[in-house]
Parts: sequence; structure tokens; C-alpha cells
Amino acid sequence: MTGTFISFEGPDGSGKTSTLNGVLAQLAGNTITKPVVTREPGGSQIAEKIRQIILDPNNKEMDVKTEALLFAAARRQHVVEVIKPALERGEILISDRFVDSSLAYQGGGRQIGIAPVAMINSFATDNLQPDLTIYLDVDSQIGLQRISNSRSGTEDRLEQEQVEFHERVTTAYHELIKANPTRIIAVNANQELAKVISDSVKIIRERIPQIFREGEHK
Amino acid sequence: MTGTFISFEGPDGSGKTSTLNGVLAQLAGNTITKPVVTREPGGSQIAEKIRQIILDPNNKEMDVKTEALLFAAARRQHVVEVIKPALERGEILISDRFVDSSLAYQGGGRQIGIAPVAMINSFATDNLQPDLTIYLDVDSQIGLQRISNSRSGTEDRLEQEQVEFHERVTTAYHELIKANPTRIIAVNANQELAKVISDSVKIIRERIPQIFREGEHK
Repeated sequence: MTGTFISFEGPDGSGKTSTLNGVLAQLAGNTITKPVVTREPGGSQIAEKIRQIILDPNNKEMDVKTEALLFAAARRQHVVEVIKPALERGEILISDRFVDSSLAYQGGGRQIGIAPVAMINSFATDNLQPDLTIYLDVDSQIGLQRISNSRSGTEDRLEQEQVEFHERVTTAYHELIKANPTRIIAVNANQELAKVISDSVKIIRERIPQIFREGEHK
Repeated sequence: MTGTFISFEGPDGSGKTSTLNGVLAQLAGNTITKPVVTREPGGSQIAEKIRQIILDPNNKEMDVKTEALLFAAARRQHVVEVIKPALERGEILISDRFVDSSLAYQGGGRQIGIAPVAMINSFATDNLQPDLTIYLDVDSQIGLQRISNSRSGTEDRLEQEQVEFHERVTTAYHELIKANPTRIIAVNANQELAKVISDSVKIIRERIPQIFREGEHK
């Protein structure tokens, strides 16, 4: 595959979506082709149906491993229908979350363990990995405060369970960075948004210069 | 877990359902507790919803690995909600198909390979295996003839693709028997139904005598 695959990762409250939008605005017109942006279930009808089962609040009996398998199934379909075809066409593909999210949320947060979740996702993706993953590294306290503010407009306290879950997710992400130091690059997401965006763009320019138009921004 | 777990396996046309019904009739009143019979999705609402996605003819784009992950997800829920609780209660649980079906159909028939499908099912079941698996061993020619007869009442010819699929499934089952000679016992399912049933019951009596009432049928 000749395209370029970049993923954005981070725990809730890391400002991932805002950062991604800001990065896209800065990339606009500066890359050799317009980036294709995707997020799971990513325009696959089958993946969307699977996601509905995962998110349906009536499905209270759902086991954490069932959830992990369903995420992997939806991801498989997203990979086959959207990601691989785009990479085969040579596109620059930017995904809001990919396998690392399952490793951090199901593996770490839900305590299945990173290794078994990695195994089923390796099956689901044929070991496809992003060329570069930008990790928005936010202190749990700051991340949780942002979630709390965005939910209520006030400083509601989050439940202890949510705090511990958030910390497990963050710990798992840090393990993934250690294990994949060349693929996953952390950006300090405690900073103000404009700085997080410019740091992210800088990393992309440094790591994947070949996707930028020649002679610009030198 | 203190219960007893028996599964029935076989390719289409092996007479599995008729044999299972016949076996249950012969076991009636002779076992220490009445066997609980299950088949996927086995009374799990979530598993049933997953199965609907697998079987929906509109989902033409479904990749074979997505299908395998969805079967594993439905199985996980069946294991957690039905199979494990029954075995923990000490029941005799008889399942019409279990993991071996995925290994034979998705691994062999759909050509994903037995090992990767075994891996995701080991995740899904926490390595739970039946104490005994009765495999209904039918020659592909006879099995296909039975399918053909039951479909049309005449001797319609099956498409070449179906024939090859059936043969791949059978080949995979035979590999599984070789790899699990103490767990999987083959019964000659080319014989007439009454003999297939009595052979199956005989194997259960020999292999798991402790589930039978004392002093009977000696």
C-alpha cells in the first residue's frame, strides 16, 4: 500500500477532536493530496449496525470481551471497506482513533489486558498499523476536569469509578508509547489548544515530510 | 465448573439435528439430571442481535473475518449467559455446535485458517472446551446428496462452489479430530439414523459414565 496512515489517539478530555480539526485546517492546501478523514465506524453500514449493538443501553448484559470482539468486527469492516482502499489509492488517511483505542479502553480501562485485545485486533486488521500516531497526552486530573466541565458547565465531581477508569486508560496508553516509540509520538495536551495543534503539525512535518508540497513552509 | 459439557458437530447433511434429538430421547430418564440443550445464539438476546447482522442478506459487503469475529462475539455472550452458569450449577449441557464449527466453517470453509479462528475463539470462551464432542462423520458425497434432497425433494445438483466449500469444511473437521483425539470422537454418519443414534449414546456411556443413573443399562 502506497498511502500514508496517521491516527490520533488520546483519553477522553484530551481535546482530540478539536486538535484534529485544527490540524486539518493547517494542513489544508499544504499536502500533496487532501487528507481523507475517517473515524470508526467510518462509513461502513455493517460497522454502523455493529456499533448500534455496542451502544444500545438495553444491552446491559454485554460482557467486556463481547464488546471487544464487536469493536474488532466493526474495525475489520472499516479497514476492508474504507481504510485499505484509501491507502491503496495512495491517499493520506487520518483516523480519529484506531487499534490503540481498543488496547487502551478495552485492554486497560476494562481490564481485559493489552495483549489479548492486541491479538484479536491483529486478526481484524491483518496487522495494519498507522505510519504515525499522534498521542494527546493529558494529565488525568486535567482530562477529567475538561470532561466534567463539558458535561455540566459546572465543576460536577465525576464518580470515583470514572476517575479510576480514566487513569487505567491513560496508563495503558503510556505502555503503548513505551512499546512503540517510533510509531506513537506524544504531544503535551495540557497546553492550550493552539499549541497542541501546532506541535502536532510539526511532528507530522518532521516524520512524514513526503506528504507536503515541495518548497512550502521551509 | 462441575457440570458436563457435550457438543455435537458435523458438516451440513450429517444428520446432526436428527441424531441429537434421537440421543436426547434415549438419554431421557437415564441421566442423573435432565440434560440442558442449547445452540447458538442460545437464549442470549445480545447474541441473537449479533446473529441477525450475520444472517441479514443485505449485508453483502461482510468480510469473512468480520463474520468470524461476530460469531465469536455471539459465542462469548452465549458462554457467559448460558453455558458457564449451567456448568457451574452442575448441569449436563449438550450444545448443537460450538467452537469446532467456527474452526471448520470459517477456518476451513471460508479459508481463514484454523489457527487464527482458534485464537479469537479462545479469547471468546476463556479456552472453555467440551468434555466430549461427538462428530458425525459423513462422506461429502452422501452429505451433499442429503442436502440436495432436503432442499428440493428432487436430486437437484448443487453448485460446484457449495461442493468445494463442503469438502473444505469436512477436511478441517478431520484435522480437528487428529489434533484432539481424546475429546472428539467420530461416529460413522453414513449409516442409518437409528445406528448413528445408538453409536452416539454408546460413546457417551463409555466416555462419561458418571452422568448416568447407577445400576441401569449395565
